[in-house]
Amino acid sequence: MSERTKTRRTRGVLGGRSERVVLEVLGATVAELAESGYRAFRMDAVSATAAVNKTTIYRRWPGKALLVGAAVEWMRTFVHDVPLPDTGSLERDLIDAFRRRLGIKERVEGRAWARLLAEKNDPEVDSIIGAAVEERSGAWYAMVTRAVARGELPDGTDPRLLLGMLGAIVDAWNAKSPGRLKADLLEAAVRTVVAGARSGSLVRSPRRRPAPRAG
Amino acid sequence: MSERTKTRRTRGVLGGRSERVVLEVLGATVAELAESGYRAFRMDAVSATAAVNKTTIYRRWPGKALLVGAAVEWMRTFVHDVPLPDTGSLERDLIDAFRRRLGIKERVEGRAWARLLAEKNDPEVDSIIGAAVEERSGAWYAMVTRAVARGELPDGTDPRLLLGMLGAIVDAWNAKSPGRLKADLLEAAVRTVVAGARSGSLVRSPRRRPAPRAG
Repeated sequence: MSERTKTRRTRGVLGGRSERVVLEVLGATVAELAESGYRAFRMDAVSATAAVNKTTIYRRWPGKALLVGAAVEWMRTFVHDVPLPDTGSLERDLIDAFRRRLGIKERVEGRAWARLLAEKNDPEVDSIIGAAVEERSGAWYAMVTRAVARGELPDGTDPRLLLGMLGAIVDAWNAKSPGRLKADLLEAAVRTVVAGARSGSLVRSPRRRPAPRAG
Repeated sequence: MSERTKTRRTRGVLGGRSERVVLEVLGATVAELAESGYRAFRMDAVSATAAVNKTTIYRRWPGKALLVGAAVEWMRTFVHDVPLPDTGSLERDLIDAFRRRLGIKERVEGRAWARLLAEKNDPEVDSIIGAAVEERSGAWYAMVTRAVARGELPDGTDPRLLLGMLGAIVDAWNAKSPGRLKADLLEAAVRTVVAGARSGSLVRSPRRRPAPRAG
């Protein structure tokens, strides 16, 4: 089958009304996830919001897990698959990345994602989002390991600790006035944690206080 | 009235059965605060737990605000009025103080206090705990300003920012495994934030990036 035939066939299936229905249903699925999360997810709500019969939905996605899985894949393409910043400066990367993350949190996709993350202990939810979460964590960790490779931070600095600390600060401050975390607060947090990490405080080693590094 | 007479009279009022009743009621009040908070506070629950008639409670504390106020004063004497550490090292002070705070959180008084803090927007709650909260914040800030005075941190370092960052990290990590925050994690957080602050990242000034300080 030539590429052109394949494209035409795909269009045949997804194009026009069919594609609109898919997008309506996936959009309604994201909205319902943001509202109810996974366990309390209501197919009825999706059907009502999208104005699509439940039987039509079930024909394409036979079950909640498959429908939510499709919505997660769809969200990934424009939330998760956007590359994280790589400016050559860890401070700049972190400020940009956290600012973007705060922006996403305000959107319905961000709220849907947060609900799924909160239910990650549920094995069904984990099987749906686990790979995406791991891939995204890896991209965040890479921001830090690139900085270690550039010599901005001591060898052995634990990316998980560094990002966990910053995430906790940013989330706590953002919770106090959602969507309005001031630029100077975010920058103070990033500068403090990066400068602290530079001192070797986040080097994971059996010894508590790593010896100061030369250079 | 001589001191001795006064003491005997106070004993006459508070001693023996009377004092036991007061302690039972205050203890039950703290437990009910931990369970329900202030708005949903149930006098019935206090009466049942303490096995004291509601009329007896109301005779001494005519109203919820007065009863909770008495319970808050009672908690302060053995939670809030304990002086914060002053070891001569900010890192040591912070590690000790946060470890103690985590210990208090596990206790019923800590849970009651957390419920009241969460309702601090309610003017009635604020009038009950406001002074205690302010006094305690002042003691925490003093730990940091003492370190600034000792030259451990640059002049102008904002104690509220420093403690806010650390509190956010400690609370987030503690929420993941309540009561079991590992000593090395707490120490890593404290060392990172203090070392970062040493670089001047938490100096409050109109300019974003304060010039590096001599010395």
